[in-house]
Amino acid sequence: MPRFRLTVEYDGTPFVGWQRQDNGPSVQQAIEDALYRFCGERATVHGAGRTDAGVHALAQVAHVDLARGAEPRTLAAALNFHLRPHPVAIVDAAVAADDFHARFSARERAYRYRLLDRPAPAAIDRGRVWWMPRALDPAPMLQAAERLVGRHDFTSFRSTQCGVDDPVKTLAQLEVRRVGEELWVEARARSFLHNQVRIITGTLVQVGLGRWTPADVSAALNACDRCSAGPTAPACGLYLVGVRY
Amino acid sequence: MPRFRLTVEYDGTPFVGWQRQDNGPSVQQAIEDALYRFCGERATVHGAGRTDAGVHALAQVAHVDLARGAEPRTLAAALNFHLRPHPVAIVDAAVAADDFHARFSARERAYRYRLLDRPAPAAIDRGRVWWMPRALDPAPMLQAAERLVGRHDFTSFRSTQCGVDDPVKTLAQLEVRRVGEELWVEARARSFLHNQVRIITGTLVQVGLGRWTPADVSAALNACDRCSAGPTAPACGLYLVGVRY
Repeated sequence: MPRFRLTVEYDGTPFVGWQRQDNGPSVQQAIEDALYRFCGERATVHGAGRTDAGVHALAQVAHVDLARGAEPRTLAAALNFHLRPHPVAIVDAAVAADDFHARFSARERAYRYRLLDRPAPAAIDRGRVWWMPRALDPAPMLQAAERLVGRHDFTSFRSTQCGVDDPVKTLAQLEVRRVGEELWVEARARSFLHNQVRIITGTLVQVGLGRWTPADVSAALNACDRCSAGPTAPACGLYLVGVRY
Repeated sequence: MPRFRLTVEYDGTPFVGWQRQDNGPSVQQAIEDALYRFCGERATVHGAGRTDAGVHALAQVAHVDLARGAEPRTLAAALNFHLRPHPVAIVDAAVAADDFHARFSARERAYRYRLLDRPAPAAIDRGRVWWMPRALDPAPMLQAAERLVGRHDFTSFRSTQCGVDDPVKTLAQLEVRRVGEELWVEARARSFLHNQVRIITGTLVQVGLGRWTPADVSAALNACDRCSAGPTAPACGLYLVGVRY
């Protein structure tokens, strides 16, 4: 039974998230339905990261087992055909080893959060960035970010609904940089807690607005209490940009 | 009667174009309606370039005369408030000289055409790029582009509906460059003919696909006949990126 690895780009706006759910359309379901229309098989597509409702992906990775083999380029083209009109695209397909698992084999995930800090709201990129009407100062944000890098108990920076047993995670990278009119927060880790990047971003924004100091962020981390960190940034600015194996 | 200069970003997708028309919503109308809701005045907003249906702008420039003065930042903020939910944003507002005219004072307009040449369709940027499933070779496209730079009769590269008397225009710049996964065609000129950038792009794409040579593009230019040039590229990839005065 051949296993395929798929690299998937999507606009998360119309979806309840990556994962199949009863309350609306999911990216996973869209791909599984496209597979069914292509080859008549009902197969489960396993993703590397279960992105939330409204979160986008430039390169989510998934795997699927098909009873019937297919040439990877043909599979990608057929899926892209049948995925229409969903804003989901298979940007790469490849044959994978039998023991490759999109989620459990992943060694690192990379996320990007796009902030647009200017008086005027986003027109072209509405729904693709988090707009805030006040300018952010990236220098103290970067100082605060450096305090979060490394191995910590991230209880303050995860959703109270997070179901992961161990809140200790190692944040390999957390950077803040200006890209044109935007400010990007980029994070890399083996794995993340639920809403971790969004709560980190919401907290760094408090620093960028001058309301919090970098030391306040360290204090929030040490408190191990969700209430001590900043608000959760909205989903629309977040992108899963890649998964490393 | 104070005159204001506005810099406007918009997603052209839901509009019949910049200009007010009977057959659907226009960007001009959206701004004029927002002005009316702000200050009760029915004023005409004059744009530098009359972008077509579906064409976007990063920095369209417009002017408007208001009976009542206003602080430019207040004007921009109020317009942005009243423009919702249209994907139109006033990114700058300033007091202008009485003889400033957004259209007639313009010395140069800059357009960008975004092409996404990869097997997978656009998901994140659907409606914001022209997707083509085959790879384009930018080198001959750039050679062909160089043949179009300068002062020429661009009859071959304008819509047969173009109402401008003189088809002779001076193309100051025409560049082709790769930006990430995309290929951008960038053009600058004092003014353009109707559909000129889209027909140039459609023709350069024929070169990038290996169907036409740069010499074929020269021949098309010299023919002074719309039928001799390539097809008109779709509106969704085109951006008015700036106007110089």
